[in-house]
Amino acid sequence: MKLTMELEQNRYDIFIKDRILHQLHNYINVNRKILLISDTGVPKQYIETVQSQCPQIYIEVVEQGEQSKTIPQWQQLLQKMVQYEFGRGDAVVALGGGMVGDLAGFVAASYMRGIDFINLPTTTLAQIDSSIGGKTALNLDHTKNVIGAFWQPKLVLIDPQTLQTLSYRQYTAGLVEAIKAGLLADEVLFQIFLQPDYQQKIQEILYRSLLVKKQIVQQDERENGIRAALNLGHTIGHGIEAATNLSSNNMLYHGECVALGILPMIEDPDLKKQVQQIFKQLKLPENPKYDLQVALQAIRHDKKAQSEKITVVKVERLAKYRLEKMDLAQIEQLFLKQAQNPIC
Amino acid sequence: MKLTMELEQNRYDIFIKDRILHQLHNYINVNRKILLISDTGVPKQYIETVQSQCPQIYIEVVEQGEQSKTIPQWQQLLQKMVQYEFGRGDAVVALGGGMVGDLAGFVAASYMRGIDFINLPTTTLAQIDSSIGGKTALNLDHTKNVIGAFWQPKLVLIDPQTLQTLSYRQYTAGLVEAIKAGLLADEVLFQIFLQPDYQQKIQEILYRSLLVKKQIVQQDERENGIRAALNLGHTIGHGIEAATNLSSNNMLYHGECVALGILPMIEDPDLKKQVQQIFKQLKLPENPKYDLQVALQAIRHDKKAQSEKITVVKVERLAKYRLEKMDLAQIEQLFLKQAQNPIC
Repeated sequence: MKLTMELEQNRYDIFIKDRILHQLHNYINVNRKILLISDTGVPKQYIETVQSQCPQIYIEVVEQGEQSKTIPQWQQLLQKMVQYEFGRGDAVVALGGGMVGDLAGFVAASYMRGIDFINLPTTTLAQIDSSIGGKTALNLDHTKNVIGAFWQPKLVLIDPQTLQTLSYRQYTAGLVEAIKAGLLADEVLFQIFLQPDYQQKIQEILYRSLLVKKQIVQQDERENGIRAALNLGHTIGHGIEAATNLSSNNMLYHGECVALGILPMIEDPDLKKQVQQIFKQLKLPENPKYDLQVALQAIRHDKKAQSEKITVVKVERLAKYRLEKMDLAQIEQLFLKQAQNPIC
Repeated sequence: MKLTMELEQNRYDIFIKDRILHQLHNYINVNRKILLISDTGVPKQYIETVQSQCPQIYIEVVEQGEQSKTIPQWQQLLQKMVQYEFGRGDAVVALGGGMVGDLAGFVAASYMRGIDFINLPTTTLAQIDSSIGGKTALNLDHTKNVIGAFWQPKLVLIDPQTLQTLSYRQYTAGLVEAIKAGLLADEVLFQIFLQPDYQQKIQEILYRSLLVKKQIVQQDERENGIRAALNLGHTIGHGIEAATNLSSNNMLYHGECVALGILPMIEDPDLKKQVQQIFKQLKLPENPKYDLQVALQAIRHDKKAQSEKITVVKVERLAKYRLEKMDLAQIEQLFLKQAQNPIC
């Protein structure tokens, strides 16, 4: 399956195909210097698969987790590229989840004012969420993604087989972004999740989720307007993420937090019940305990918070949403409502 | 005088006007947070002029010189912006020479994936060379400008009166970029320098130089093709710059090095004599002593050096140039030829 992103300055293809990682050389020019950036959570076999196809490859495996998305790590990677004499015609390849994509993307965006970036996402979340959008990022101290650039990949290759080595929890947490896409704009996609065999349809789930995101991003490449729709569930979700992840034994995945953030945004009660049913079937964790004030503080600091008003996304009914401006007191009410809407 | 840059994703204006620094509030929205980045070489009076017009301004004055164009300096500025809670609608303003523009531009480009950047260049070189092109940059260890992004300003305001506080040497070195523009594409601009009263025509010099650069950059925003013409004199110039600036008592300005790099590229002997005459009148320094191997090494490492061939710009006659690929041995010959073509 193939999608083509048509952006203002460039276009690129996204291919979804089992074992496509083994056919890399059919899709990209491997006869140049390639910096492969991966992390310690990515199975070695995938790194070796890429390595075996690229004669001039340099491999950098960073520590798994957000703590690698920093200036020192980025600087180290750039220093290696200078040392290896990377030129403007060479390329950076990301192999892994969203963290690796954010970091490698910013390396590619900022080396010599931008060189080719090729994304090989290997997690459900990264395949659905990071393949489209061109967002690259670093964290600065405690502020997530405050550094970065919009830098589009040259190519994205999605190999659904890599999902088989994920834990069940990581696999399902990533699917929340697909459910989000269905809620926003694709009834058929949403209904796949109501069937017991949804896992058999992973290629269709990936494809349809990307199609929703593609249509929204193509209209608003730099996130000035309707792209905000993609933040469905993310305002509350980010707050919960920040507040729960302070205590490491209570850590939740991004998708799990977004799931909790989606529920209070659904206005149609029947639809909300269906979503709760799906989340339950995916065995997403129940409502976590967190400090409400910490979560609200995190939202206030969130870069999406311009002035005092925060834009949230409400789902009126399946595939019908609207943007709404809220102040922090109203957001607080949503958190309280969320506590009444646990997943199960 | 006004020019409008028409680029793929955006357009912006460049205004050239005496005392325009005092009318900032007529051109930009000053009612938001503004980070003013300047350096210790910029007269305080200009900083105060900007400050007095912006109610929510934060001022950061970095050390003059390339040693401020580093990751730690950039990081510190971003940390201040997080601390002051800069949002996507706020702005970064550069006030100073090319270094300040490069640094401030990359700060603006990388904060929250890009916020407004307003450029107030105060040196001849920056007014001519950094107003157009969208190049922002940091140095990494000993590699100049290897980090950066293309990030266009929202607006450029050029106040020719600020040139009055420059040293004569800094003033004239910057004019070399104007002579370069004339040689490439504007006979009238070139001929201004043949007249004794050229200093009276500084507004016209600035305007015509920018017009030449504008026409070239608009055709090739990301430097993939004909924009290479702007590198006239820069291949040899950068080599001399790198080799002479190793010994600090022999330091040359960028424009002075470019002047030395332009001469061997002029094929018409009468035109070359005219250019030598102009350089002499500007009192540019004569041929400096440097280590040829160091200069060649610097060129080899230069980011413009893709594979073994280096593109140089040759001037056949006034306002008629061509691009030519050369290898390092041929470049070495040009250096030797340069030694036979001193400025006076």
